[in-house]
Amino acid sequence: MAEAKVRVVIVGGSGYTGLELLRLLIPHPRVEVVGVTSRQYQGKKVQQVFPSLGPSELIFINPAIEELVDEGEAVFTAVPHREAMEIVAGLQGKKELRIIDLSADFRLRQAETYQDWYGPHQAPELLAEAVYGLPEIYFSRIQQARLIGNPGCYPTSVILGLAPLLKAGAVQADGMVIDSKSGVSGAGRSLALGSLYCEVAEGFKAYKVGGEHRHIPEIEQELSLLAGRPLRVTFTPHLVPMSRGILSTMVLSPEKELTWKGVRDLFEDFYREAPFIRLVGEDDLPNTLRVRGSNYCEIGWRLDRRTGRLIVLSAIDNLVKGAAGQAIQNLNILLGWDQTLGLTQLPLYP
Amino acid sequence: MAEAKVRVVIVGGSGYTGLELLRLLIPHPRVEVVGVTSRQYQGKKVQQVFPSLGPSELIFINPAIEELVDEGEAVFTAVPHREAMEIVAGLQGKKELRIIDLSADFRLRQAETYQDWYGPHQAPELLAEAVYGLPEIYFSRIQQARLIGNPGCYPTSVILGLAPLLKAGAVQADGMVIDSKSGVSGAGRSLALGSLYCEVAEGFKAYKVGGEHRHIPEIEQELSLLAGRPLRVTFTPHLVPMSRGILSTMVLSPEKELTWKGVRDLFEDFYREAPFIRLVGEDDLPNTLRVRGSNYCEIGWRLDRRTGRLIVLSAIDNLVKGAAGQAIQNLNILLGWDQTLGLTQLPLYP
Amino acid sequence: MAEAKVRVVIVGGSGYTGLELLRLLIPHPRVEVVGVTSRQYQGKKVQQVFPSLGPSELIFINPAIEELVDEGEAVFTAVPHREAMEIVAGLQGKKELRIIDLSADFRLRQAETYQDWYGPHQAPELLAEAVYGLPEIYFSRIQQARLIGNPGCYPTSVILGLAPLLKAGAVQADGMVIDSKSGVSGAGRSLALGSLYCEVAEGFKAYKVGGEHRHIPEIEQELSLLAGRPLRVTFTPHLVPMSRGILSTMVLSPEKELTWKGVRDLFEDFYREAPFIRLVGEDDLPNTLRVRGSNYCEIGWRLDRRTGRLIVLSAIDNLVKGAAGQAIQNLNILLGWDQTLGLTQLPLYP
Amino acid sequence: MAEAKVRVVIVGGSGYTGLELLRLLIPHPRVEVVGVTSRQYQGKKVQQVFPSLGPSELIFINPAIEELVDEGEAVFTAVPHREAMEIVAGLQGKKELRIIDLSADFRLRQAETYQDWYGPHQAPELLAEAVYGLPEIYFSRIQQARLIGNPGCYPTSVILGLAPLLKAGAVQADGMVIDSKSGVSGAGRSLALGSLYCEVAEGFKAYKVGGEHRHIPEIEQELSLLAGRPLRVTFTPHLVPMSRGILSTMVLSPEKELTWKGVRDLFEDFYREAPFIRLVGEDDLPNTLRVRGSNYCEIGWRLDRRTGRLIVLSAIDNLVKGAAGQAIQNLNILLGWDQTLGLTQLPLYP
Repeated sequence: MAEAKVRVVIVGGSGYTGLELLRLLIPHPRVEVVGVTSRQYQGKKVQQVFPSLGPSELIFINPAIEELVDEGEAVFTAVPHREAMEIVAGLQGKKELRIIDLSADFRLRQAETYQDWYGPHQAPELLAEAVYGLPEIYFSRIQQARLIGNPGCYPTSVILGLAPLLKAGAVQADGMVIDSKSGVSGAGRSLALGSLYCEVAEGFKAYKVGGEHRHIPEIEQELSLLAGRPLRVTFTPHLVPMSRGILSTMVLSPEKELTWKGVRDLFEDFYREAPFIRLVGEDDLPNTLRVRGSNYCEIGWRLDRRTGRLIVLSAIDNLVKGAAGQAIQNLNILLGWDQTLGLTQLPLYP
Repeated sequence: MAEAKVRVVIVGGSGYTGLELLRLLIPHPRVEVVGVTSRQYQGKKVQQVFPSLGPSELIFINPAIEELVDEGEAVFTAVPHREAMEIVAGLQGKKELRIIDLSADFRLRQAETYQDWYGPHQAPELLAEAVYGLPEIYFSRIQQARLIGNPGCYPTSVILGLAPLLKAGAVQADGMVIDSKSGVSGAGRSLALGSLYCEVAEGFKAYKVGGEHRHIPEIEQELSLLAGRPLRVTFTPHLVPMSRGILSTMVLSPEKELTWKGVRDLFEDFYREAPFIRLVGEDDLPNTLRVRGSNYCEIGWRLDRRTGRLIVLSAIDNLVKGAAGQAIQNLNILLGWDQTLGLTQLPLYP
Repeated sequence: MAEAKVRVVIVGGSGYTGLELLRLLIPHPRVEVVGVTSRQYQGKKVQQVFPSLGPSELIFINPAIEELVDEGEAVFTAVPHREAMEIVAGLQGKKELRIIDLSADFRLRQAETYQDWYGPHQAPELLAEAVYGLPEIYFSRIQQARLIGNPGCYPTSVILGLAPLLKAGAVQADGMVIDSKSGVSGAGRSLALGSLYCEVAEGFKAYKVGGEHRHIPEIEQELSLLAGRPLRVTFTPHLVPMSRGILSTMVLSPEKELTWKGVRDLFEDFYREAPFIRLVGEDDLPNTLRVRGSNYCEIGWRLDRRTGRLIVLSAIDNLVKGAAGQAIQNLNILLGWDQTLGLTQLPLYP
Repeated sequence: MAEAKVRVVIVGGSGYTGLELLRLLIPHPRVEVVGVTSRQYQGKKVQQVFPSLGPSELIFINPAIEELVDEGEAVFTAVPHREAMEIVAGLQGKKELRIIDLSADFRLRQAETYQDWYGPHQAPELLAEAVYGLPEIYFSRIQQARLIGNPGCYPTSVILGLAPLLKAGAVQADGMVIDSKSGVSGAGRSLALGSLYCEVAEGFKAYKVGGEHRHIPEIEQELSLLAGRPLRVTFTPHLVPMSRGILSTMVLSPEKELTWKGVRDLFEDFYREAPFIRLVGEDDLPNTLRVRGSNYCEIGWRLDRRTGRLIVLSAIDNLVKGAAGQAIQNLNILLGWDQTLGLTQLPLYP
């Protein structure tokens, strides 16, 4: 523990992603959180807003972007999309600064795609430099990166469940049906009728059905690269009455005859060096509760002999592997540390 | 209210389906519950086992089947499959007795299909006589029926969401992907590790993935009849941390170009006389909480222009429209009453 | 059913209380809802805002108070306190109009007490006329009333659990300790951080501890009248991660030796004509789930021989017996109908 | 980390307490879990029964007690009461073995009290030696202990909230009213109707009301010692629809005039060296969600000027500070390590 700590700033620390970054970074052995910004809570103690974090000297600040540059050696931006690109652009003065952006602003490689789904991009020149921060696929590129576009929660669960199959050409790239279900924390900590306890508890529904969810271009971008050709997916997100977790159910058409064991081999091979991937056994299936609070991703699958389909299921904690945990995993990698540093908590079950 | 009441017996009244039958039948204006059986609670007062029902003279009994015949004019059998067929066979002595079986034993038309999924059928001669009790499709046959096979919860939600489309040939019969999610009451009131609060709350998982769920042959039987040709579906059930409700998400390939309004016309036409079907508007989607405690089925849909798919969603309360409510709707029909009698409670929201 | 229906208006119909009034009044056999007001949703269809209610011609309106007078024969005001007294005062032009106010504005008999807890009362002259609408105690006064102050949810649960004991002088009036726990719908449908699913689920806390909750003067007013002398209570409210329900735990000191059966006699005697009171048996205890969605109140008790205390527990659904159901019970009474009209739904369990 | 690890055995590792011990001990820097016993799962891999723990070589074993003695240097017994005392008695052959018993068998100092509540004690000679493992009170005795009676979950929450006040004579020892509420995991992982999701969710109830709960003698033993005289409490436990957490609400009568700050001083003084105690601020109150998954105990209080009462609230995670976490805290202390070793995880919120 005598090693020097890296000074880290969190920009936009008052949402659930900010809270989760703090929960994981405060006990991180190589990190010191030196600043947390929040427009809403400026001047308030962090421990007042988030008592679960315990006593802390941290106070929410709201500095100008230029001042931020001098604060830390690494920055996590956890602000809404469009705000993020402004801040990241404003931080370009300090070239050695590592930036991990948790918004959607640096996940898409094409400025046109960004424009189609979010509006015009303000810093398109940075898109080429940004690395898509999914370590199970882009480990070596992340090692060299200065700017990371941290993946979305749904895309993380979907891509991890499909990457080995598409890479191996084991399933058809066309016609994939993806049905994802997320806990409520995915909607953030802002006040919205649909996030009220009474509107969510004991109910279940889909939303943004019919190709409307903004995570679709991100999913398609990465799956197309894996498949080696452009593809489109039918993606339906759902809201589960629980706080954390995403389960994705993916119905695929094999390219050739597959066995459970054959699929296992593909996954094991692809994730040989991926410490956070947990392949479940032949008599088991993923469950979000079993990864809650952790950076793990459970993956399982079944063949349906009657219809010839392969069904793959993946489970993550949307706030950890789907956001803050993955962001820290990226930090660990680009600073040359063990990628699991500070991320070995076992899931909280029950 | 001066009209004579029909005397009704519930066989197997100590599970959640039995409780739900009692909740709906006790205040039913034309029904008198004259007997409720339970092996487990024999001799106990119903109000002790189910205090929510309030004061009642009813006591759980456990008579021989032959005695049951004399008890009532109509019988609901709410016992596990295989037990049900024995009881129903034993009730054949009284020909005027109306029987509504809530198990799987009289839903499948082919004894061989039953055998493949449940084991040998003990009363195959009754299968031809039994009517599949989905009133939105078989109303006139139910009117003439003596023995009803009350549909399963998943099949109810799926068939109601697909019937108008398959009947009209608007979607391809092959390759349909059905992702259903059920509340925990679907697993019944028996003691099982997987039904414990701590195993369910704040988690989400799929189960019986890969063509294993026994509701599949029932779904395929009815959808094949609607489509006019044999078909198979990829069906994946999931468990939601809530007590009641099923939402089914169905991804379909249109046979020709469809519009939201065109689909609406098909549904409106098909369900013109179906008082429990609620089609949601173009800016809305079904939600199980909005049908909780009621016999309604919400149906909505979206077209995904990017992939050319049609996504249909349906929501029911698995214990009402998916079990007890539908059984009473069937009773109403076969006794010549208004099918909504005793079933007009509005959903409990929140 | 050929009897003429009474025309009813709901003022402030867009919260959970308004929704619950609509859920219960729409199928009420003697009532026609002719108007529902909402500032927020003015011009919107009720079925759009509350799809669970099903198809309906009703549209949210926002008329001037004077116009309201002409709309109906009875009015439910379900707006925040202070707003309510303005509206009620404005409705005084039509003397035959029956008004049931669900806010706190007409529950307290003394304008000074109101002022201490809520601020100055704008219509103190109406306080003398208003009747506290707890039918189990004030049935005959409600029959004559024109203006009802519908009781608060916590007070309803507390007073129903204590009235027979205080009236009989069976317990000491001083030093009563009341610990109440409410579901989240008690906080209403407005946007507040503390009502978000993620802030509530899987947590439990007290709030307004130390004599701060505004239901205290209402509880003390009624308990003092029952005891025949002024008294004060220690009242601690808690928030339960559930949508509906209040359980109150009341720790009392008997004035003389009591037995379980002796207490039962007191309760049975007091509630002889109270159809919504359910006394639980000696081996049973109240549970909010067993009254959910219904107008019933479960009451149970235990003697602690080691400490000499009597512990009384009561359970209601805060939106029904604690608000909308009780309001309709009051309407039934003051219009001379059976008090249970439209309120005989059995609880939704599970 | 080069320091030798202590070899630890968990006896009865297949319940939620066993799972929680494993969750906390597997990553503990100074501990190696060398054995886990389970009658039910003998021969099964731990990772199959508890997939959330991840890959592990551990297999559930079921050895004779004598063999257990040789396995480890420290033993956690997490079996039901009465079974525990047999095992602990059987382990007496190895005098240097440290035993931390999580059952009720070694918490009570008097064999007669044990007999009154649980039946005859089989190893009364060990009661004198056993140390009550509440480190915030018995730190130095735990340092010397060989056998620890790990406190119950309710007693931990109650005693921590009252100790400073009783020790200082600040509140009356008589007449304390304690209302505690627990999550469902307190009922364990065994199959019971009352633990089913559908029986618990969206409901709230009390149980074992009237001086019936077996944690009462433990609470009274410790509070009497603190007060310096025998006392009795009125204790009412409740079941909350959540998996983890206990909140205790304690209504007290001050011996003299108290202020919020005065109480703060008492607590700060008493808990000066207690790293897991978190006193909440004057504008805040404890919440179980804010300690979930952690070994912390939040304590807050309010004075009710109207009734002269002091209300104290405490919140813990029943599986951590109320069971497994406290057991490990005890192990740390009796092995001379920092008491927070392996217990510094921040709570999981939300």
